[in-house]
Amino acid sequence: MGGDNAPSVAIAGAMEATSQLPNDLNLTLVGDESIIRQHVGTNLPTNISICHAPETVTSSDQASRILKSKPESSIVKGLKLVESQKADAFISAGSTGAVMATALLILGRVQGVRRPALGAYIPTNMGGKIFCDVGANPEVKPFHMLQFAIMASYYLEHIEGCNNPKIGLINIGEEPNKGSELYQETHKLLSQKLSNFIGNVEGRHLLTSEANVLVCDGFVGNTVLKFAESWVNVFSKEISIRIKEKTSYKIGATLMKPVFNSLKKNYDYEEHGGTPLLGLNGVCIIAHGSSGIKSIKNSIFVAKKCVEEKLALNTKRTIETFLAEEK
Amino acid sequence: MGGDNAPSVAIAGAMEATSQLPNDLNLTLVGDESIIRQHVGTNLPTNISICHAPETVTSSDQASRILKSKPESSIVKGLKLVESQKADAFISAGSTGAVMATALLILGRVQGVRRPALGAYIPTNMGGKIFCDVGANPEVKPFHMLQFAIMASYYLEHIEGCNNPKIGLINIGEEPNKGSELYQETHKLLSQKLSNFIGNVEGRHLLTSEANVLVCDGFVGNTVLKFAESWVNVFSKEISIRIKEKTSYKIGATLMKPVFNSLKKNYDYEEHGGTPLLGLNGVCIIAHGSSGIKSIKNSIFVAKKCVEEKLALNTKRTIETFLAEEK
Repeated sequence: MGGDNAPSVAIAGAMEATSQLPNDLNLTLVGDESIIRQHVGTNLPTNISICHAPETVTSSDQASRILKSKPESSIVKGLKLVESQKADAFISAGSTGAVMATALLILGRVQGVRRPALGAYIPTNMGGKIFCDVGANPEVKPFHMLQFAIMASYYLEHIEGCNNPKIGLINIGEEPNKGSELYQETHKLLSQKLSNFIGNVEGRHLLTSEANVLVCDGFVGNTVLKFAESWVNVFSKEISIRIKEKTSYKIGATLMKPVFNSLKKNYDYEEHGGTPLLGLNGVCIIAHGSSGIKSIKNSIFVAKKCVEEKLALNTKRTIETFLAEEK
Repeated sequence: MGGDNAPSVAIAGAMEATSQLPNDLNLTLVGDESIIRQHVGTNLPTNISICHAPETVTSSDQASRILKSKPESSIVKGLKLVESQKADAFISAGSTGAVMATALLILGRVQGVRRPALGAYIPTNMGGKIFCDVGANPEVKPFHMLQFAIMASYYLEHIEGCNNPKIGLINIGEEPNKGSELYQETHKLLSQKLSNFIGNVEGRHLLTSEANVLVCDGFVGNTVLKFAESWVNVFSKEISIRIKEKTSYKIGATLMKPVFNSLKKNYDYEEHGGTPLLGLNGVCIIAHGSSGIKSIKNSIFVAKKCVEEKLALNTKRTIETFLAEEK
């Protein structure tokens, strides 16, 4: 029931995913059954079921109170399916804050992880990068950012197939003594603890630096990520307004269409799908609020990969190994 | 001597500015005289003079120590011209950190201003916006951000001609209780003190919100600004690579050239020039490191406007009025 295009897009995405992998997936649509039935009609595939969740989470609900105030919402009921092992993973395009807070309460943290974090997968022509954290933790300490680096590296290497990911720290200068005290301390800590830490990465190099994992606090990560997304829209809109001024522009745009499409495909989060909450004791994928059918389908495939690779268990092991080495 | 294209671009920009306004400007080129002479040849206009500054500031110099370690650098000598009232304003495309630290030591703060801040002028099709702070203060308190809002509003209204600028606070959610404690406290303070405060602005709405002044700490502002600038370059580069693949793409791009040019012009900081350090007891314009001739010329015109409008004096009055109302 979550996301800008709910529930039709979530349903269509689920349909597409199961039709592509009919033998590998069993999906449960969590939401108001009568509304879902209106969308699916009578042709519900045998590997898709419905879990009735009549309550709706709205923007006026306090994220941290949803478990108590909306026990019959799709967020609570879906996450409880994972808790009770009736499902392996939960996927939502609903309010990120609401899903995060409720997932933390229902599934809990992986042992040893202080703060679960949200990673965003950013496609670039040099391969995908992970920005972490992008909004779960507006306030952090250096040790939290160290854990973000470890968890995001593990995810990028084992779920996305990036060999030996390099870690960079977002900062306002390249030298170790740049930035706020928090970032100076974090630079020190990452330098000491991580062999694949390559130092600070400035805003201007976020897309082009060698770093595969870009670590930051959730305030900076969220602002940069949302700004980047809007930037593409603002430009597309401005181009399409200007094109209308002259026939030659329109012809030019038509000839260039494959160029724009290829560019769009390269940077399109739809192509990738959502990303998991890292450090959570279970798989919970946060999909973009404006996810389309393809993004939902790909989010389901990301979830499948996380389950197969035992993301939660292996995050626990990675953190444990790290903590053991510490002693 | 500062900036990526020094000194040729600074010299050419100065030449253009004086040729456009020959009766209104007297410029001093501050730098190594023999190098400057090589560029200007024998045709130095009568309203351009040279101030010899043989030392060069490098990236290994500590910004806060340049006044002592490089007294003969163009940054120190140029700012001293302003201090001794031999010049009305100083313009540099050199290291922002070095210019800021040295300007603060030589010119000092406007009385009542706790922290001078750097504003960035962002052209949009709804008119220019100011982001403040974009790098002078990686660590701030709510009261500092309140002063950034007041100073940036004054600048935007009186130097850029924006009537009754609206103020927004960059944050990771629209509600007052969103973001870190710092931003929650700042939201409260701005709501209490500023009648033109319109609330939080998320990353996705930075370019499209109603706010003309966007307030943030220097870490967030610097990261977002630099990222935005790189984003345009990354896209331009990717488009130009793809265009080469097919003749029809090349033809399309040629037909669309006026569209791209108009877009570029709209968002080009070259068109605007640098921005002053706000709250400084004198006019010091920070131009972009990669400034071209046009940007230097326009930075000179921004400086002229700041001098004519008595920016430092009026910032002092605005802050005084505000502090008086407080009591």
